[in-house]
This record gives sequence, structure tokens and C-alpha cells, in this order.
Amino acid sequence: MKFTEEQVISEISSIFSPSNQKNPQVLVGIGDDAAVVATDKHSVITTDMAIEDVHFKCEWSTANQIGSKITVANLADIYAMGADPQYLVVALTLTGKEEMQWIKDLAQGIADTAAASDSAVVGGDLSRGEKIMISITAVGSSRLHITRSGARPGDSIYLSALPGWSRAGFEILSRNLSDSPAHARALSQFRSPELSPTIMRSFKSAHALCDISDSLMIQAEQISKASGVNLTIDSSKIESAEGFADLAAVAHLIGCDVWDLISGGGEDHVLLATGVNLPGICIGEVRAGSGVEFPEIKKAPESWRHFN
Amino acid sequence: MKFTEEQVISEISSIFSPSNQKNPQVLVGIGDDAAVVATDKHSVITTDMAIEDVHFKCEWSTANQIGSKITVANLADIYAMGADPQYLVVALTLTGKEEMQWIKDLAQGIADTAAASDSAVVGGDLSRGEKIMISITAVGSSRLHITRSGARPGDSIYLSALPGWSRAGFEILSRNLSDSPAHARALSQFRSPELSPTIMRSFKSAHALCDISDSLMIQAEQISKASGVNLTIDSSKIESAEGFADLAAVAHLIGCDVWDLISGGGEDHVLLATGVNLPGICIGEVRAGSGVEFPEIKKAPESWRHFN
Repeated sequence: MKFTEEQVISEISSIFSPSNQKNPQVLVGIGDDAAVVATDKHSVITTDMAIEDVHFKCEWSTANQIGSKITVANLADIYAMGADPQYLVVALTLTGKEEMQWIKDLAQGIADTAAASDSAVVGGDLSRGEKIMISITAVGSSRLHITRSGARPGDSIYLSALPGWSRAGFEILSRNLSDSPAHARALSQFRSPELSPTIMRSFKSAHALCDISDSLMIQAEQISKASGVNLTIDSSKIESAEGFADLAAVAHLIGCDVWDLISGGGEDHVLLATGVNLPGICIGEVRAGSGVEFPEIKKAPESWRHFN
Repeated sequence: MKFTEEQVISEISSIFSPSNQKNPQVLVGIGDDAAVVATDKHSVITTDMAIEDVHFKCEWSTANQIGSKITVANLADIYAMGADPQYLVVALTLTGKEEMQWIKDLAQGIADTAAASDSAVVGGDLSRGEKIMISITAVGSSRLHITRSGARPGDSIYLSALPGWSRAGFEILSRNLSDSPAHARALSQFRSPELSPTIMRSFKSAHALCDISDSLMIQAEQISKASGVNLTIDSSKIESAEGFADLAAVAHLIGCDVWDLISGGGEDHVLLATGVNLPGICIGEVRAGSGVEFPEIKKAPESWRHFN
């Protein structure tokens, strides 16, 4: 490294510590053996990691985007339980070839994304390895919790936003397609998926809830199986969702099937819910039975494995 | 891999899930977006990772030992705050070259070590990378918490056990010294440091407390600085501790200074405390002033950087 481990820790701590000091729920923040924080009766815990050249490429994304994306992945899992994120810890491996500014940008991406969901980074661990690796654990507060098993016949099915954009962005980058204004939303969503705390929090009255980071199709099947119900998705409802026409245009431009992007893509960190009168996009209904019916999709294509 | 990601997740889950199902505090265990667990008013959170060829070598340690060691590192940080560990999440990167039995042994090492401290693995994330990487986050319950800043003049200084064994084991392995019965304890302590929940829990009346994973000298200096006091260590008290003569014999055999091992080694995951009438080894006293006095050590040798 062009600097010592102590210098990196000092720079990173100075980015994360202010939110610790401002937050009366953080009793002991960064700097001791562990953080001490105020918790509720029930907490939600999840962990999600990102590895260079597996989950992200430094040529494709800025440090800030990489930090934001892995933070969003963790926060979305907390929201996907009907909970509110509170605390994050970050285990970070650097190769030693990074510029200090790159490291600071990564930390800032994590810190800003955490702050936008009212959560704070309260600890971490730094190491050196051959690839950059970021492993985040998020802890949230749960008064209630919503699993995949609560769907009931008669429920409607909802998405918090239209998925498929992140996968479109991945295709554009991995096929090295030329930059174009039409690609902007897809690239942006791949590099740094948008998290919408407001709509995610408003899914707290859902009966069944999950994040569709592995794709709409896979996770609809999980709800179907866990709840013992049939999920029938109405593609005409998806067609009328905000952004569908734009996504279809991008799909056409890059030679993808828009339904493959929507049903088989992942990493948009959109919530899938069943319930009554939820916000977001209503895409179908829950029926007695089993399995997922999605007329546009005969079978989730084998080749559509998400980017990890 | 010789098997699919789903098979690995299934095998690992079957090792971790029984403790989830037995534990009434685990409301939602492995398998949903996140775990939901019962927590106290205050929780303690820490994260610690281990990377192949940086923190461990597969030629030197079994999978079970590697799993146990990184778990101990996390649990010790929870005890070092005067708290009780409860929940762990594990982010694991595999290269794809491992045998399934190796992976199961790794998981079993983590599960057994967690169980010995009454804690359970409630979630995780699996990925593929060029090196094996294990990142664990531990969450514990804290009715009180003990930082590094509580030492007062008049306190005695205590260790929960004699440190130096792990460093001796590292020296034996890294210099490729021949196997010998005299090396057994050092090798065992390096490969899989012993955690003593009973004595660690009995340090809850300490005034200042920390884990000495970075070495006795470094962490005594941290207590001294954080508390604004002087720590005077009496080496004759350490000499009368259980195992000192054996460690000195090993040090002689491998050509190390026993005081370098004790003061500059690390990763034994021993607690350092100040207070009154604590168990363990009393090694000195806290005085008004600053700095650490340790007559046997003129200066912590630059070369003694711990193994990470």
C-alpha cells in the first residue's frame, strides 16, 4: 500500500464515526473491540458480500457506486422482512493497489446509502487480499416480521418497482455495447441500484414479502412454495407499469427479451409482496394451488443466472 | 465445483439449522431474506474475517480448526465488551476446488464453537472467489458494557490466560520446524485457539477490558491511552503463571524470546482486564500516569507483526 493500515483505518473511521456520534442509540461506536447499540425486542440480521470481478468490476463502476450497491443489497434484505435497518458492520479487503481517494469514495458510498435509510456503520474489519472484497452485515429493528410464507389466496401481488434494469445494464457492459443516452437508466441501475426506503417501508402491511435480488421468477416460486399457494402474474399489468416501454426499447436495442430481463434478471433490489391495497405495481393475484404462472415466460432460461 | 451452489447451501444449512430450531430466541432462522432474533435493550456487534494465505493456510490447519479459529476471534470480541454472544452470520467464499467434506468440516467447526458459547449461526452468504474467505459477524447481549477506558489507579491488571502460544505455533509452522511433542500446545493454540467462556464471563466486573488479539503490548497501550493511566506489568507474576515454564522451554527450543512471544504475539484471544479481585493471572497494577511499563520489554520489536 502507499499508506499504512493505520492511515486507512483512520480515514475510513473519520467517514463513519460522525453518524455514530450523532446517533444516541450508538452507545459505543467504532474503535473498541465491538460496537454497543440500542436494540428492540426483535432484531433482523442479514449478511451479503461483493467480490471484485465476481460481483463488480472496477472498470465498470466507481468506488462510490460499488459501496452503495453492496449496502443496498443488505438494506433491501432488512426491508424485505418488514423491518427497519439500523446498524451495519463492514469487513473490507483491499489489494494495496488502491488510491486513498478510491478507498474514501467506497466508504462514502456505503455511509451515504446507510444514512439515506437512517442506519449507521458501527464497526468493521480491514484486511489485505488479492481482490477487493466487501462483506456487510446489517442489523435492523423488527416490531413485526414478514416472511415468504404468509401469502393467502385472494391477495394481490405487488412489486415495489419494475425490475430488469440492472440486468439490462449488466448486458450492456458485459457485451461492451457503445454508450448511448438510451442506456443511461440501465447502466445507473446496474452500477448503483436505487433503494426507495419510503415505498419499502410502506410494504409493512404485506402478508408475504421478499427481495427479488435473485430474480422475480425464482423468488415468486419461493413465495409460492413457502406459502403453499399459486401466484398468477398478469403481464399486461406489468406492461402498464412506469418505465416498461423504456425497458422494452432498451431490450430491443441490445437484443434481449424484455420478459427475460424482468423475470430472470436480478440485483434491482425490488420488493415482491402479496397483500391487499399495497403501493407499487400490482402484477397479479394469489390463488389456491401451487406454482407460478407467468404467461410470458415458458421457463426461466437456464442461461439467465444473475451476476454472482 | 464438484457440486452446485444449492447443494453446498443445503449441506451447510443442515449443520447450522438445528441450533436455530432448538433456540426459542431465533424467530426466523436460516432461509428467508434475513434472520429475526430476540434481542435485549443493548446489543454488541463485531465483525472479523479470515482469508486463505493471509490469516490461515489449508496445509497448516484442518477445515474444522479454521472455522473454529475465526469464530473464536469474533466471540472473544463480544466477551471483551463484557457481553454474551448470541448470534452469528457467516459470509463464505469458496474457490470451487474444495471437497464437500472439507466444507462441512469448516461449517461444523464454526457451529461447534458457536454452540460452546451458547450462540447460533442464523444466516449467511455464499460466493465464489480465488481464495477461501470467511467473514463472520457476531451479535451479543449486553446488560452492561466494558470499554478500554475504565481503568483506574489502584486496579490490578489481569489476563484470562497466558498469551504467546499461538505466536509460538505460527513460528514453528512458518519456519517449517520438525514436529515434536513439545510443540503440541503451541500448534494447537495457533490452529484453533482455546476459548474459555467461563473465565471470560467472569470478567464482567472488570473496569477496563479488551481482547489481546493484536498482542498484549499493543492492547495494554490502548487501555493506558483510553483510560489516561499507567499500566505497570510485573514479569515475575507472569513467570509464575500456569504454562510459563513450558512456553519458555518451547521459546528456547525454537529460538524465540519468551517475552517477545508473550508481549508481542497475538491471536490467543485472551482477555486483558483491569479491576479488583478478578480471576485469571494478575500481572501488575494500574497507576496514575501514562504509558505501559513492562521491564522485560524495552520496545515492542518492529518485526513482531501479528499474522494478518
